[in-house]
Amino acid sequence: MEFFEDLEVGARDEIGSHTFTAEEIKRFAEAFDPQPFHLDEDAAAKSHFGGLLASGWHTQAVWMKLNVRYWQRRWREREAAGQSLPKVGPSPGFDELKWLRPVYAGDTISFVNEVIGKKLSRSMPGWGLVTFKMTGRNQSGEEAISFVGHVFVESHEKPEP
Amino acid sequence: MEFFEDLEVGARDEIGSHTFTAEEIKRFAEAFDPQPFHLDEDAAAKSHFGGLLASGWHTQAVWMKLNVRYWQRRWREREAAGQSLPKVGPSPGFDELKWLRPVYAGDTISFVNEVIGKKLSRSMPGWGLVTFKMTGRNQSGEEAISFVGHVFVESHEKPEP
Repeated sequence: MEFFEDLEVGARDEIGSHTFTAEEIKRFAEAFDPQPFHLDEDAAAKSHFGGLLASGWHTQAVWMKLNVRYWQRRWREREAAGQSLPKVGPSPGFDELKWLRPVYAGDTISFVNEVIGKKLSRSMPGWGLVTFKMTGRNQSGEEAISFVGHVFVESHEKPEP
Repeated sequence: MEFFEDLEVGARDEIGSHTFTAEEIKRFAEAFDPQPFHLDEDAAAKSHFGGLLASGWHTQAVWMKLNVRYWQRRWREREAAGQSLPKVGPSPGFDELKWLRPVYAGDTISFVNEVIGKKLSRSMPGWGLVTFKMTGRNQSGEEAISFVGHVFVESHEKPEP
């Protein structure tokens, strides 16, 4: 995240891509989503999905990994350039999480965050609430996952009296 | 899930509890949320959280595991009793995912699903949309996580003409 005042509605961050292997799909499913179509190719082929696919929560978690790494990289660059780093607060939550298409073994999902709203906090001086939409598209450009997230970011702006 | 017509608004399912160990918190974080306060006790102690805590997506994923296992167990019981099993469709998504309190290493979270709405589908005969709220509370009874989920469930009811 940038400082609140540097974030513009419409700004897009391409945070990265990930190819989901059958092995990692099954490993995540064994730990967190043990349904047959996430665990076994044969069972998945017989299901209405027609093939092994990632748990929706796996796709979501991979976004989180790429997002954290993206911002860690961006912040290292800021530090290297002698710039200060914004404080980022805990997320007040997520909305409208949708799995729009299956993520099959071998699919590559590319994740983009887009700022869709920002509002200076009146109750917490020095903070602003940023709303963004994440979209993950597969190698054919089709939307596979999206959600709306919210995060508090440090601000130098002063609320109007 | 039960058949649509057997699900009542207000019905609660206690789907299970889980104690988050430091080891698994770090393992999840290394894979999906590599922030210092999820990875290292010393870094976490120095953070504003004051101690090692689970990634919010880890808490969420543990709910999924317990939820899947709970329904697999319930369905085996139905099968053993010679009862038929409802078809369950893919989830159209989740809303209002909130992390209300940190989940620290050693915390035990107990998850409950409560049916908060149901609506027969007009466009997909034989299916109904069920809305539920999940709440995860810690060993002190404090809410740590909640969300609103939606799922399509098989129905024998006929929509009114």
